[in-house]
Amino acid sequence: MKSYVIGIDVGGTNIVTAVADLKGNVINKTKIPTEAKNGYKNTIVRIKEQVEKVLELSGVTLSDVAGIGIGVPGLIDVEKGMCYFSGNLGDEWQNVNIKEDLKKFFDLPIFLDNDVNVAALGEKYFGAAKNCKDFIYITIGTGIGSAIVCDGKLIRGHRFCAGEFGHLTVDRNGPRCTCGNIGCIEAIASAPAIARRIKEKINSGRKSIMVDLAGGIDNITAKTLSEAFDKGDELAIEIMKETGEWLGIAIAGYINIINPELFIIGGGVSRAGERLLKYIREEVNKRAMKVQKESCRIITAQQLDEAGMMGAIAAILGYLNLI
Amino acid sequence: MKSYVIGIDVGGTNIVTAVADLKGNVINKTKIPTEAKNGYKNTIVRIKEQVEKVLELSGVTLSDVAGIGIGVPGLIDVEKGMCYFSGNLGDEWQNVNIKEDLKKFFDLPIFLDNDVNVAALGEKYFGAAKNCKDFIYITIGTGIGSAIVCDGKLIRGHRFCAGEFGHLTVDRNGPRCTCGNIGCIEAIASAPAIARRIKEKINSGRKSIMVDLAGGIDNITAKTLSEAFDKGDELAIEIMKETGEWLGIAIAGYINIINPELFIIGGGVSRAGERLLKYIREEVNKRAMKVQKESCRIITAQQLDEAGMMGAIAAILGYLNLI
Repeated sequence: MKSYVIGIDVGGTNIVTAVADLKGNVINKTKIPTEAKNGYKNTIVRIKEQVEKVLELSGVTLSDVAGIGIGVPGLIDVEKGMCYFSGNLGDEWQNVNIKEDLKKFFDLPIFLDNDVNVAALGEKYFGAAKNCKDFIYITIGTGIGSAIVCDGKLIRGHRFCAGEFGHLTVDRNGPRCTCGNIGCIEAIASAPAIARRIKEKINSGRKSIMVDLAGGIDNITAKTLSEAFDKGDELAIEIMKETGEWLGIAIAGYINIINPELFIIGGGVSRAGERLLKYIREEVNKRAMKVQKESCRIITAQQLDEAGMMGAIAAILGYLNLI
Repeated sequence: MKSYVIGIDVGGTNIVTAVADLKGNVINKTKIPTEAKNGYKNTIVRIKEQVEKVLELSGVTLSDVAGIGIGVPGLIDVEKGMCYFSGNLGDEWQNVNIKEDLKKFFDLPIFLDNDVNVAALGEKYFGAAKNCKDFIYITIGTGIGSAIVCDGKLIRGHRFCAGEFGHLTVDRNGPRCTCGNIGCIEAIASAPAIARRIKEKINSGRKSIMVDLAGGIDNITAKTLSEAFDKGDELAIEIMKETGEWLGIAIAGYINIINPELFIIGGGVSRAGERLLKYIREEVNKRAMKVQKESCRIITAQQLDEAGMMGAIAAILGYLNLI
């Protein structure tokens, strides 16, 4: 019986590599900048080096490792271990077989999945969704993504693209989204969209302490919003409420369709916590169907800073039926 | 090896009972009015009589029946065989164990599911979704319901309520829905909602041949819309287009979230066929994500008049692994 697994979180900014025992306790981890601009092959070699380094730091030999789990921000074919496309990592990550390329270095079971699915598995095994068979995990950050677990299994879709909740239209005539559509929830409630909406209001003459708090209008982020909200800033309260309402409209529909017992909100914007959840819950309560809303709790994720790493560990433990 | 199954479609208007062979070929069927107002127990006895009658008509003995499948328009617990609630059948159908009550008459495997799930199984085994592992079936009639099949299995949700696509909000400030929410797609694109929108336009002064075609404004239905559309009626074309656009907005979101290979539209409104599908497809094409829309066909259901009956037959054949 092998005693360890490796989890790798390939993020847009950093790559975190961890060794964990079979209960998910992290022994050691390393963090390096992703530097995706230096190309795919270079990154694979640097990942290999990090695996070797973290094993050495932990005093674990490769022969005692049961498998490697990897989360990648992209369109992943979990059966083939391929990445078809990654907006975050760039063109070189198109149609690459990450699993095969890592197999050249490590003759171990390797399981690859997209970062949001992996984070949902982290919540399932180590976080808020323990013992939950039916839940939705959404992440609100630069974009809005989601993972759906029904009857204990991730819903992947015909082409591994299920869960694109961020591109649900909530406002037919709303703002243009990066996907090309108009009025997606992502175009209204992602971190950049929130910042954009704040700036638009300020530019149109609204007063707010957010300008000073952030050190200039261009530095305003979703984080500034929470700070100003706590100080009672009128515009901050208005934007927080609007954001919660739009998210609530979308989430009510999602809950009606999937009927989960738990709805977990992760990603940077979820750091607003109850400030935002209060408005989301109010709107969901107004809009979702009776059984659906009564049987579903809406909460923030437990794994935030380490969602990707813990998710990658969870993914490989789940894949190997070790958890 | 038993050679037959029984399928029962308990509709709001009629109960259809059929005997079919293990390939789903219907030997005989009966149809009686549901008369739900006469109470639950009375209806169960009448269903029992229909089963006996249709077996006699078919020259099949109960000992040669492998099981009974039933579709019911309500909130169904498939494990217990219970109906928790049925808006169509009335208060007496609340918290009744249909499976147990029928078991008193027939000592056979009985499988109960809600009418939309059952209709989706009909399409899976006998209709448009043959060989499909990932598809969505929606029905647009008095209401809008849906069933989701992922990786070959129906998504049921934590409390058996998954699929309530009709109550996705598409217009934050839209019309009031029967569910209490505002701007649900059902409140805009169900058969009664379409008729209401036509009448509102006519009452506000718009001219249309639909008044004459239907024999008075109060008789206008979704069917009148198709007739007038074919004759080039301006208002009919406008309403058909708007309906398709709103449905397309909702369906694009649904496809983004589930990533099915097939999206089947059934129910009375789907009889509009290409007249409506054209506008739905155009809107989905504008709004859904690239992989999602490219990998999903949007079509009308193959089973229309007999969706419930064929679905009930499919449900029991699937439950018994006979298909």
